[in-house]
Amino acid sequence: MSSTSTTTPLAPHPDRLFPADPGARAVARTVYDAVRDLPIISPHGHVDAALIADDQPFPDPAALLVTPDHYVLRLLHANGVGLQDLGRPDHSGAHPLPDGREVWRRLAEHWDDFAGTPVRYWFETELHDVFGLTEHPSATNADEQYDRIAAALATPALRPRALFDSFGIEVLATTDGPADDLAAHARLAADPSFTGRVLPTFRADAVFDPSRPDWRHVVASIGEASGIDTGTHDGLLAALRDRRRYFIEHGATATDTGVLDAGSTPLSATERARIHAAAQQGPSGVTAAEAVAYRHDMLFRWAEMSVEDGLVMQLHPGVLRNHHAPTLERFGPDTGHDLPAVGAFTEPLRPLLEAFGTTPGFHLVLFTVDETVFSREIGPLAGFYPAVYAGAPWWFIDTPAAIGRYRAAVTDSAGFTKTSGFIDDTRAYCSIPARHDMARRADAAYLASLVVTHQLGEEDAVHTARRIVSDIPRATFKL
Amino acid sequence: MSSTSTTTPLAPHPDRLFPADPGARAVARTVYDAVRDLPIISPHGHVDAALIADDQPFPDPAALLVTPDHYVLRLLHANGVGLQDLGRPDHSGAHPLPDGREVWRRLAEHWDDFAGTPVRYWFETELHDVFGLTEHPSATNADEQYDRIAAALATPALRPRALFDSFGIEVLATTDGPADDLAAHARLAADPSFTGRVLPTFRADAVFDPSRPDWRHVVASIGEASGIDTGTHDGLLAALRDRRRYFIEHGATATDTGVLDAGSTPLSATERARIHAAAQQGPSGVTAAEAVAYRHDMLFRWAEMSVEDGLVMQLHPGVLRNHHAPTLERFGPDTGHDLPAVGAFTEPLRPLLEAFGTTPGFHLVLFTVDETVFSREIGPLAGFYPAVYAGAPWWFIDTPAAIGRYRAAVTDSAGFTKTSGFIDDTRAYCSIPARHDMARRADAAYLASLVVTHQLGEEDAVHTARRIVSDIPRATFKL
Amino acid sequence: MSSTSTTTPLAPHPDRLFPADPGARAVARTVYDAVRDLPIISPHGHVDAALIADDQPFPDPAALLVTPDHYVLRLLHANGVGLQDLGRPDHSGAHPLPDGREVWRRLAEHWDDFAGTPVRYWFETELHDVFGLTEHPSATNADEQYDRIAAALATPALRPRALFDSFGIEVLATTDGPADDLAAHARLAADPSFTGRVLPTFRADAVFDPSRPDWRHVVASIGEASGIDTGTHDGLLAALRDRRRYFIEHGATATDTGVLDAGSTPLSATERARIHAAAQQGPSGVTAAEAVAYRHDMLFRWAEMSVEDGLVMQLHPGVLRNHHAPTLERFGPDTGHDLPAVGAFTEPLRPLLEAFGTTPGFHLVLFTVDETVFSREIGPLAGFYPAVYAGAPWWFIDTPAAIGRYRAAVTDSAGFTKTSGFIDDTRAYCSIPARHDMARRADAAYLASLVVTHQLGEEDAVHTARRIVSDIPRATFKL
Repeated sequence: MSSTSTTTPLAPHPDRLFPADPGARAVARTVYDAVRDLPIISPHGHVDAALIADDQPFPDPAALLVTPDHYVLRLLHANGVGLQDLGRPDHSGAHPLPDGREVWRRLAEHWDDFAGTPVRYWFETELHDVFGLTEHPSATNADEQYDRIAAALATPALRPRALFDSFGIEVLATTDGPADDLAAHARLAADPSFTGRVLPTFRADAVFDPSRPDWRHVVASIGEASGIDTGTHDGLLAALRDRRRYFIEHGATATDTGVLDAGSTPLSATERARIHAAAQQGPSGVTAAEAVAYRHDMLFRWAEMSVEDGLVMQLHPGVLRNHHAPTLERFGPDTGHDLPAVGAFTEPLRPLLEAFGTTPGFHLVLFTVDETVFSREIGPLAGFYPAVYAGAPWWFIDTPAAIGRYRAAVTDSAGFTKTSGFIDDTRAYCSIPARHDMARRADAAYLASLVVTHQLGEEDAVHTARRIVSDIPRATFKL
Repeated sequence: MSSTSTTTPLAPHPDRLFPADPGARAVARTVYDAVRDLPIISPHGHVDAALIADDQPFPDPAALLVTPDHYVLRLLHANGVGLQDLGRPDHSGAHPLPDGREVWRRLAEHWDDFAGTPVRYWFETELHDVFGLTEHPSATNADEQYDRIAAALATPALRPRALFDSFGIEVLATTDGPADDLAAHARLAADPSFTGRVLPTFRADAVFDPSRPDWRHVVASIGEASGIDTGTHDGLLAALRDRRRYFIEHGATATDTGVLDAGSTPLSATERARIHAAAQQGPSGVTAAEAVAYRHDMLFRWAEMSVEDGLVMQLHPGVLRNHHAPTLERFGPDTGHDLPAVGAFTEPLRPLLEAFGTTPGFHLVLFTVDETVFSREIGPLAGFYPAVYAGAPWWFIDTPAAIGRYRAAVTDSAGFTKTSGFIDDTRAYCSIPARHDMARRADAAYLASLVVTHQLGEEDAVHTARRIVSDIPRATFKL
Repeated sequence: MSSTSTTTPLAPHPDRLFPADPGARAVARTVYDAVRDLPIISPHGHVDAALIADDQPFPDPAALLVTPDHYVLRLLHANGVGLQDLGRPDHSGAHPLPDGREVWRRLAEHWDDFAGTPVRYWFETELHDVFGLTEHPSATNADEQYDRIAAALATPALRPRALFDSFGIEVLATTDGPADDLAAHARLAADPSFTGRVLPTFRADAVFDPSRPDWRHVVASIGEASGIDTGTHDGLLAALRDRRRYFIEHGATATDTGVLDAGSTPLSATERARIHAAAQQGPSGVTAAEAVAYRHDMLFRWAEMSVEDGLVMQLHPGVLRNHHAPTLERFGPDTGHDLPAVGAFTEPLRPLLEAFGTTPGFHLVLFTVDETVFSREIGPLAGFYPAVYAGAPWWFIDTPAAIGRYRAAVTDSAGFTKTSGFIDDTRAYCSIPARHDMARRADAAYLASLVVTHQLGEEDAVHTARRIVSDIPRATFKL
C-alpha cells in the first residue's frame, strides 16, 4: 500500500484518448470536434429524479463523490480500506460513521492506486471541469481540496438543475421501481421552469424471481399501485401492463431488466399459474427449478409486452450479485462485490427471438459484462435480428480500452447502426459529462483508426460519430 | 434507419489496412508488395465448379452480388429490409420476387449501414476493381450503377473463366456432396483450354447425424453412388472410403466437416452398428444421446480414413444453424441466422488426437467462429500436435481486425508454419480477389508490427508473408 | 517443413517491443530506462536450488537449452521433430539418446519455424547476451554455434553463481515438494560467500487429489518428514502445517498450487475424514466425485493455513496435464502437451473468498492460461477483495502481446497495485534475464500507451514501472 503525498498538477489534456500517431490524432480531433458539444442523451442511468426535481444543494464532497460510487469504493476496498472508513453504514454497529473529511483523506491517500484506471480517468475530468481542481488529490492537499469542493457545492452553479444545463443534458432516463408513483417525474414535467427531459424507466427485477425474499412484497405492491389483484399470474401480468402504461404516460420509452441468465423459454398458462400460486406461500413454496422456469417465462412475457406497448426492452444478464455474503450482511448491497458471470445470449434468447426477433418496432438492447460475447454472440445477433441492438460496454467494461475492443468486435458483424450509443449507467450525477466525453473520445479514436487505414472516409467518420451521439440513441431508445 | 442519398467517390486506397505510423506503414508496404501479385490459392470455398465449367455470363447484378451473399443479406435484414425484398424466394407465397433493380436499390439506400464493416470493405474493392465503379452506391446512383454492372457482366472479360485468369487464381477448391459425380470437375480437367486447378472437397455432414431428417436419404445416395450397401455401418464406412477414393481421383486433397461440437469419442463396432441399424427406422429410431454418440464416433472414423487415404481433414464445429425457425421456414437455410456457438477443441478432440495426433501425414485443420479458443485451444494444440493446423479466421471473423487478433493470439503458441493460410470460404466468386487481398494486407500489417517492434527482421517478414500466401497453404492442404 | 540454411545477423535491438510511433517510443524508452537495471525478483520458478548450491558447470548446450525447455520442445514437435530426436529418453526403448550436437542441429534447422514467436524472442536475447552469439541459428552454423556455447559453458563466468550475480538476481524462489528437506537451500543460506536469496516454495499438488496413483506415497512421505501420522485427515493437516513451518524457517514466503479447477467448497470434518480414510485403500477407494470434493475442501484448508501462517497462496488452475497419453507413456510428463482448459474463478472460489477474502494479511495470487478471465473474473476479483492479486500472464501467455492484453484487461478493474509483478515460471535458468527484460519492455510499452493518450503522466508512468518491478512483487509475495 502506498501513501500518495506529493502534489502534481491536474490538467486533463485536450487530446486525451486520441491515438499517438500524429496523422491519426489529427483525424480523431476532427471527428471529436464534431460531437464534443452535442447535447448529452443519457438513456440509461440511476440518478434519482427527485434530485433534479428538488434541486437542493449536494451534501458534502465525500457523500457526493466517494461513498455512493461503487467504482471508487471497490478499488479502495481492494487496496485495504474498510467500507466502514468510506462512509458506508456498518450494520454490525462496530464503527460509527466517519466524517466526510476523513473519507476524502482515504481517497486522497490512495490516489496512486487508481493510476491508469478508467475511474481515475473520468474522476480527473470531473474534478477539473466541475470543481475546478488543478492538483491531483494527495495526502498533502486533501483537506484543502475537500474545503474547495464543499465551498463549490454551496454555490447556485452547482445545484442539480444548473448542472443539468451546464452539462448540456437533453435527455436523462432514470430507473424506477414498478410501483413507483413517479411523482418527481410528474413535478418536473409540470414545471415550466425546467425544460429538460427526465424520463422514468420501468424496472421490476424482483418480479422475475419467486425465490427472492422480496418477491411477494413487490408483487403485492404492484397490485396496490395498479388496483389489480396480483394474486394470480394473469392478474400480475395485467397489473404489469397497467404499470407500464402508467410509466409510458410519464414519458418512459424503455424498461430495464437484470437477470442472472437470459433464458427465455415460455411456460404454458397452466404451469405459470401453478408456480405463481405456489410462490404465494413464500420463497420455500417453489423449487429452485420452478423459480428459474418462472423467471425464464417472465422474460418471454416482458418481450411480449414490449411488442404490445412499444417500450424498448433493455437486458443485462450475467451479474453475480453480492458475491461476499459477510460484506452484504454488514454493509448492504451495491458495495463493490457484484461480479461478472459468464455471458450467454444466442442459446438462451432463442425462444424469445423466434417469437419476436423480427417483429417490427420491437427493440431489444443487449448489455454484457463478459467481453467474450461481443464478437461471438451480441454482434452476430444484432447483425441479423432487426429487433436486437448491441448495447454499449457497461459497468466493469465502460472504459476507454474496452470501448475500443467493443467497437472492434461488434462493428464487424453489426456495423454502427445496430448499437445503442453510450450509456453512463451511473448514480454519480457529476460524472455524467466526463463519461460521455470519454465515450466520444474513444469512439473518435476508433473511427480515426478506420480512417487512417482507409476503411472509412473522414467525412463518413464524422457523420458516423454524429449518429453515434445523437441519431442512434434516439432511434434505439425511441426518444 | 438512414437513407444514403449523397454520392461520394469510391477509390480504394493503395495503403489500406496498413498501420498509420509512417515507419510501420513503409514496412507493411514492402511486405505486401512481395505478395500482392502472387497467385491465389483458395483451398476452401463454395463456388460451384459448374460455374467455371459452363462459363456462362453471370445473371443480373443483384442475383450475383446481393441475393446469394449471406454477409450482405444479414446486415440489410438487421437494418429492417425483409428477405423477400432482397430476392429470396418467399415460401409463404406472400411476396412475388422483386426485380433485381429493386434489390440493388435496397442495398444502395442502406450503404451507410455498412460503414466500417468488413463486408463494405471488400465490397468496395470488388465494385472498383472488378466492375470499375468510382462512386459509393447511393439512392441517387443506384439505377445507373445497376446498369453499369449489368453491362459489364455481358462482356467476355467478366465471364467466369476470364475472371479466373484475371483474378490470378491458381487453385480453387469447391465443396461437394458425398454422392456428387463431380462431372463439372471432370469436364474442367479434360478441357485443354482451361489450365487452372478446380478441386472438389468431400463434405458429408448429413452422414454424421442420424437424427437429421435427410440422413437416410444421404446414406442411401452414397450407397447408390458407390454401389456398396450402406444399410450397415460397416457398409457405410466402406462406401465412404469408396467415395473418398473417387474424390481423390478427381483431384480432391481434403474433406470438410461442420458439426455442432468437436466430440470424437469412438464407439465399439457393436454399438455403432446397433445405432446405425436403429436409425434406418428414421430419425425417431434413435435417441438424442445415441445420435450424438454416433456423430462423435463418425468424427473419429473420419480421422481414421484421413490417416488411410491422406485427405486433409478440415473441421469447423460450433455453428448453430438456422437460429430463427420462422425465417428458415419462409426463406430456407443460409439466410443469415446461422450463429456462432461457444467453441471447444481441447477436451472433445482428445480421443481423436490421442489416436492420430502424431501420425505422420495426417493433417487436421481447425476452424472456429469463437475467438476465445485461438489463444486457449487452437494455438496450443497446433503448437504441440504435428497433425493440427490453426485454421484462418472464418465467416463472422474473416475481417481485418479479427485477422490481426488471430495472428496475435495464435502466433505465440504455433508460429506461422502451423497455420492454414487464408481461406475465403465464399460463394461470392467476384469477391475472391478482394478477400485474399484483404488477408495479404492484414498479414502484412501484422508482420510490420513485429518488424517495427524488432521481433522479426524485415527480410524474415517478407519471407514469412510469402510462406503464408504460397508454401503454407500448399503444405497444409497438400496441394 | 522448411530448413533454415541461410545465416543472418542476430542483434537484439535496443528499442525492441517499444511502440512504433516515435513519440510513444521515446516515452517507452524513458520508462524502461528507469527499470532496466533494477535487480530481478523472481518469486515463482522452477530452477533447482541445488544448481546454485553446487555451482557446477552446465552440461552441453542442448541439454541446457533445448531438451528441458518444454516451450522449445513443443514447437519443434509441432513441426515434425520427434521428442526422441530432441534428447528426451524414449521409454519404449526404440531410440538411443541422440548426441547433444544432433539435437542442436534440429533446433537450428527449424529456427524459421520459431519466427514471430515469443520463444524465439527471448531465446535471441539469451543467445546474444549470455552466450555472445551474433548470428541466428541455421543449418550452416549449427556446429560452430554448438561449439561456441559449449566453450562458453566451460568458463567460470557461466557457472550458476556467477550468472546469478551477472543476471542481477536479488531473489529467486524455487518450487519444492512437501517432504523436501531443503538441504540445498540450507547450504546456500549457510554459505557466507553467497549473498543472494534463494527461497523455497511449498507445493504439494499430489496431496489434493486422492485419485492420483501417487497420493498415498506423497501423503506418507509428508508423515515421515514431519514425524506426524498422516493416516487420518487431521493428521495430514497437522503434518502439512508442520512442513509449512519448516519451509518458512528455510525462507519460504509462499505456496504454489496447480489444480484442474478452483472449486473450494469445504467439507465437514466427518466427511473429509471419511474420504481420507477410504483413500488409504488406494485410488479405487474413492469415487471420482469424492476425489473432487476432497480436493475442493483441501483448497479451502490451504487458504485457512495461509491465514494462519502468512504464506502467500498462489493458485493456477485450469491446465489439462498430459493431453496425449501415448506421449506421456513414451516420454513422461512435461513434454509439451499440458494444455489450457477453460478458466473459472468467481463461482468456484466463492466459499474460500467468503471465508478469507477480506482477512488482513491473506494474499491469494490467481494465475490463468485462459485470457478470457482477465477482464471478466480476475480483474474484478482483485478489484474488490483485498486478498486477491491478479497474477501475471503465465506459460502459454507469457508473451509480449499477451502481457499487453493482460494489462489492458486487468488495469481497468484492479489498477497496478493489485497485480503480482512478472513471474518467469521457468526451468531455463539462462532465460531468466531475457524474460524479465521482456516483461519490463512490455510494461513500458503499455505505460507509454497510457502516457501518450494522456491517461497517465510520464512521471507517474516511471513511478508505476518501478513499483511493478520492485515494490509490487515485494508486497504481493511478502519478500
